[in-house]
Amino acid sequence: MSMMLEEIRQQPAVLERILASPPDALARLSRRFSRTRPDFAVIVARGTSDHAAIFGRYLFEITLGLPTLLAAPSVATLYDRLSLPPGALVIGISQSGESTDINGYVEAAKSLGAFCIGITNEADSTLAGLSDEVLATRAGKEKSVAATKTYTAQLAMLYWLARALGSEISTGDLRKIPGAVAAQLEGERSVQRLADSFREMSHAVVIGRGFNQANGFEFALKLMETCYVVATGFSGADFAHGPIAIVEERFPVFAFSPVGPTFEQTEALLSRLQASQAETVCFGPPATVRALPSAQRIEVAEIPPSSPDLPRDLLSVIPMIIPAQLFACHLSASKGLNPDRPRMLSKVTQTL
Amino acid sequence: MSMMLEEIRQQPAVLERILASPPDALARLSRRFSRTRPDFAVIVARGTSDHAAIFGRYLFEITLGLPTLLAAPSVATLYDRLSLPPGALVIGISQSGESTDINGYVEAAKSLGAFCIGITNEADSTLAGLSDEVLATRAGKEKSVAATKTYTAQLAMLYWLARALGSEISTGDLRKIPGAVAAQLEGERSVQRLADSFREMSHAVVIGRGFNQANGFEFALKLMETCYVVATGFSGADFAHGPIAIVEERFPVFAFSPVGPTFEQTEALLSRLQASQAETVCFGPPATVRALPSAQRIEVAEIPPSSPDLPRDLLSVIPMIIPAQLFACHLSASKGLNPDRPRMLSKVTQTL
Repeated sequence: MSMMLEEIRQQPAVLERILASPPDALARLSRRFSRTRPDFAVIVARGTSDHAAIFGRYLFEITLGLPTLLAAPSVATLYDRLSLPPGALVIGISQSGESTDINGYVEAAKSLGAFCIGITNEADSTLAGLSDEVLATRAGKEKSVAATKTYTAQLAMLYWLARALGSEISTGDLRKIPGAVAAQLEGERSVQRLADSFREMSHAVVIGRGFNQANGFEFALKLMETCYVVATGFSGADFAHGPIAIVEERFPVFAFSPVGPTFEQTEALLSRLQASQAETVCFGPPATVRALPSAQRIEVAEIPPSSPDLPRDLLSVIPMIIPAQLFACHLSASKGLNPDRPRMLSKVTQTL
Repeated sequence: MSMMLEEIRQQPAVLERILASPPDALARLSRRFSRTRPDFAVIVARGTSDHAAIFGRYLFEITLGLPTLLAAPSVATLYDRLSLPPGALVIGISQSGESTDINGYVEAAKSLGAFCIGITNEADSTLAGLSDEVLATRAGKEKSVAATKTYTAQLAMLYWLARALGSEISTGDLRKIPGAVAAQLEGERSVQRLADSFREMSHAVVIGRGFNQANGFEFALKLMETCYVVATGFSGADFAHGPIAIVEERFPVFAFSPVGPTFEQTEALLSRLQASQAETVCFGPPATVRALPSAQRIEVAEIPPSSPDLPRDLLSVIPMIIPAQLFACHLSASKGLNPDRPRMLSKVTQTL
């Protein structure tokens, strides 16, 4: 069994560890932010962690009304021109905590007086040392180059951080996530069969909107890293603004379609894609996904938030990515590749 | 001749019109921002205009130290949860001024008290009507679905806006751009020959960093829209964080390589790509591009800023995209396609 598959299967236990009770730093963070609310947040990350950052951005803007900027690290590391007002909250996300550009950005932000939080899987890393507070994801060593369990661990930690900042996500709801993930893993065999049927796939597009835009980019990255599929993630709206022209008969398009504010727009896009005979695969709750205009479907159980004030798709992101991770992992095997050792990659990427 | 080619060739005249003297609104904007500087800027756009927005983000952060957020329109339009502090400056960019989501976002921002600037080619559009100040790009009607002259017009207008906000870009330097573009167009024949040699290309990656990240995304979009090439734009650093695994022998990779702070990192990436026998094409100044580890080169004359305090690649973005536009246009013809009528697209895209 590949390390990737092993780590995918560890996720219920990892998420249970993170979501059963709030991390140590959370009470301190709640106290700090109840006194002074940041003017805006900046999240700095690369690769899979940057996809968690995209989710964090929607989470903070939608549940907190906190404007959130996804940092361009090179402004600090290559152009050496970072400028932040003192009211900015900076959040660095890195599995290893050793990405030179993320650490360079956090260091520059700290020297400007910003309060910095590090979300990392390595509590002794450089990022942890640089940060004013550390949210350690404690997912256990991630051995596969393709990140899976640290991605969902980062997403889970962002829910906690949103709570510390004042968001009303219920802890009871968060505790439903590990069980939903475990249930999702039970469907592995049918995802594997579907992946096998895509053995010849050389290119693809993945659509996700709102909270699930992060998953669109993350699934595309997994397809690139582990299956060498030329895959691109898009917001459905951005896709309709030009790139949709590449779709021809049997072009593979994957779409995350949770119930919630993004559903109608995704459905409309799928209708257009069906008209052009694209090969679509939808991820969504059983009751709605069956009615979507799509060639293939993967059912993902829903966790509707208890509070009617929160968007219905708020808790869909972690369960949704599980079958996508399984799909990439099994497609890789189906293509005769080793998902743990993508060519040209190592676990810690050093760029500036 | 395609409308796209016609419009590519109109760019020296369009840019001359925009850059010869500041737009009317600029003196008013300068006065306003000399009194109160915004806490941060928000740029909202889709498609090609969103690529101009990416450039605007680097421009504002690097030359003004102004944190700049690229908006997620759905936070306003689908989730209905937009929240902005009164000190935010909102900039909407849309060729047509009729994108429903951009206008929805600007409307929501205005109702929150934000000052809104519209950059549009249609001075009578809905976006213009919604905005507190309009920067009209006056590029003449854009008839081709694939945007070219409105993209460079938006980039040019962003230089003016940065000046209004206090950036020290010299007007003399800006006036050199139309001539540089005209000179670039004279190389059309050699770009056409190169494009012809890529007739069979079905997929590609485009690399750009810093100011030129915008061009990376824009060239990828042109290849998708007009040539149906499955193309993805990446920051070189993001590419090295996973997607680079897709590169195999003869995989086409295009890279914008201006002289400046991003040069060394791009060179290092090209060396890795050369080692894996990728089919690389570099865009850069004659003196440096010839020395880059790349299979093919396109020379683009440099406009180094007069002020040594400004990054050397600040004015490279408009000249750099010209040969890329020509490449896409001629590749489309070479493939027997019509670049003016991509399948499934119309000129004004309506999404939420």
